[in-house]
Amino acid sequence: MNNFEFYSPTCFVFGKDTETSAGEYVKRFGGSKVLIHYGGGSAVRSGLLDRIKESLSKESIAFTELGGVKPNPRSGLVYEGIDLCKKENVDFILAVGGGSVIDSSKAIAAGAIYDGDFWDFYSGKRVEKALSVGTVLTIAAAGSEGSPDSVITKEEGMLKRGASGDAIRPKFSILNPALTQTLPAYQTAAGITDIMAHLYERYLTNTEEVEVTDRLIEGLLLTMIHEGPRVISDPDNYEARANIMWAGTMAHNNSCGVGRSQDWNSHNIEHELSALYDCAHGAGLAVTMPAVFSYTMSHNVMRFAQAAVRIWGCQMDFAHPEVTAKAGIEAFRNFLISIGMPKNFEELGAKEEDIPKLVDVLLHGNGREGTITGFVTLNEEDCTRIYKLMV
Amino acid sequence: MNNFEFYSPTCFVFGKDTETSAGEYVKRFGGSKVLIHYGGGSAVRSGLLDRIKESLSKESIAFTELGGVKPNPRSGLVYEGIDLCKKENVDFILAVGGGSVIDSSKAIAAGAIYDGDFWDFYSGKRVEKALSVGTVLTIAAAGSEGSPDSVITKEEGMLKRGASGDAIRPKFSILNPALTQTLPAYQTAAGITDIMAHLYERYLTNTEEVEVTDRLIEGLLLTMIHEGPRVISDPDNYEARANIMWAGTMAHNNSCGVGRSQDWNSHNIEHELSALYDCAHGAGLAVTMPAVFSYTMSHNVMRFAQAAVRIWGCQMDFAHPEVTAKAGIEAFRNFLISIGMPKNFEELGAKEEDIPKLVDVLLHGNGREGTITGFVTLNEEDCTRIYKLMV
Repeated sequence: MNNFEFYSPTCFVFGKDTETSAGEYVKRFGGSKVLIHYGGGSAVRSGLLDRIKESLSKESIAFTELGGVKPNPRSGLVYEGIDLCKKENVDFILAVGGGSVIDSSKAIAAGAIYDGDFWDFYSGKRVEKALSVGTVLTIAAAGSEGSPDSVITKEEGMLKRGASGDAIRPKFSILNPALTQTLPAYQTAAGITDIMAHLYERYLTNTEEVEVTDRLIEGLLLTMIHEGPRVISDPDNYEARANIMWAGTMAHNNSCGVGRSQDWNSHNIEHELSALYDCAHGAGLAVTMPAVFSYTMSHNVMRFAQAAVRIWGCQMDFAHPEVTAKAGIEAFRNFLISIGMPKNFEELGAKEEDIPKLVDVLLHGNGREGTITGFVTLNEEDCTRIYKLMV
Repeated sequence: MNNFEFYSPTCFVFGKDTETSAGEYVKRFGGSKVLIHYGGGSAVRSGLLDRIKESLSKESIAFTELGGVKPNPRSGLVYEGIDLCKKENVDFILAVGGGSVIDSSKAIAAGAIYDGDFWDFYSGKRVEKALSVGTVLTIAAAGSEGSPDSVITKEEGMLKRGASGDAIRPKFSILNPALTQTLPAYQTAAGITDIMAHLYERYLTNTEEVEVTDRLIEGLLLTMIHEGPRVISDPDNYEARANIMWAGTMAHNNSCGVGRSQDWNSHNIEHELSALYDCAHGAGLAVTMPAVFSYTMSHNVMRFAQAAVRIWGCQMDFAHPEVTAKAGIEAFRNFLISIGMPKNFEELGAKEEDIPKLVDVLLHGNGREGTITGFVTLNEEDCTRIYKLMV
């Protein structure tokens, strides 16, 4: 196991009706003027925004608001949010939504007290100072509610890039599983896929002797395999939603990823798909992961065999571990299809003829110099072949 | 799943040589005058205390020290520590040791800025304010390095009682697995047992639909089953020590216990044993748990069967689940014996004739009114029969 520091000071407030205590938590963490940041009209129509405003008013906390965050959140709205915060002397950003809203909120929080262009943080500069962020989560997926990370897409060139720093970790995150019950099945499934990706990206490690984190990751994946189909067939199942929601947070607060190298090749390869086609990140991952895993399996067959046996319940073929390894990847692929995720470029809305462009942006955007690295290092030929496997 | 708040702001610093950054972390968390609190001479002889003092001096942090903490830490030394802190204007307690040292440090931290008797906190009053506490952990066991809890024994009546509050959660905990390599095998095994007890006490729940936390607990127990025997047969195995150490922290920071009722009957029943006989807490638990589990198994046979199958790899007897449930308890018992733990009163140094006294203090001490409650509620007859099962 490698040395590490684990610091996850976010206060998680979990359960039914917990959004009505938003004001109390903003106050506890020092906010006095709030920007409520959200996405489309559903937060308004469902009455969620009203409940939150009422909770803020009850604590005499002033607020302003900015809606309109889209999936794969854009830099344009971030600039707008930064201007608004400066104008209104906002000291606390309350994100009401999913990963996109939270990531946009983190970007605004970092940019609002920075003299330069906030995009600097998405070009490699670490976030050291930011306004406080809190969240009311409405979809279990991104894990952004407990992470120090944010991903934003820059309209110019459709560059999708990440920023990181403890300063943008949410001070609190309110997780009410009931708020996720109204999500369309496709979004629920994309969220499940994203959570499983966060686990697999940590599972694919080159660090040896990591039994404890292996077992935690496996436990969370087993949870998703049990609860995923339940929630797809019965969207109002609060208990299944609750188990998925806590698994989603634990999957990405890094308690199961510490002390080990991680992969993130699938995320990097997928980011170009959702940036170009504006598809759901989870849906892109559903197509990307089986291809990446099949292509990189030979790097460590026994790790994939372990996943197959411990996570997917495959019988170990001791004479031919690669058969077991493959069976595990196939089981994962079939699971993703079974919950309604796309299985190839066509179902995703991607085009084979774009592959050279995808590879070019992937390997030469954002200061990269012709490779991406993680579980294995991938060059132009590798990435081209991986995208072709998805066709 | 029940509603819950999860807040674990402790910064964990994990790995080789990490104790040399103690000064840096005291500074980061605002300490300027430190009380170094420790146990016996081994911290001095091994040079650990010197390395820590050097690290504090490097950051120009003043310190004073108080050693002498014994297993099952006593109130006498706590009073001494409180006086010292007041006299020397200490603002930060650095615990260097295991659970006993950390618990003693938390008691001092709470008492040093409280006008009344610190024992109030061990008689039901919640700790709301305390000096900051940091830890350098030397044994993986108690989980006190990431918990808001402390257990102290009052000499008068040998009462062993707990206090709790976010204020006494360590600000940081330095976990260097190498520091645990010099522990005697018995102490290592007692630590392993304590960690497994923290997991089982959470596993035995009456809350339904808790797949995610079940799976996390199972994953951590599987880790202990894999790494425990390795470290007993090869005490210098850093990797096994590292996996156990992180499992120990995760077992007790409550991320795997949220949203569910918990048991803690075994801990309560054991506390009377270590209070009366001054045995190692883990050794007492090794004798207590199989008795408690056998006695309470019928309350929820399927939960014990699940543990047997998922944790101990037993074959499920679908026609007779109670057979599987029993097999799991027996597997646990044999595991504890295999790592060198006592199996009954005699090996522990306890006496059958003391049972009435044990039951009396257990059920009538500390304001209890004749029962203890958790997975099941236990009265005088129940507790008597459980202690008799240990003979």
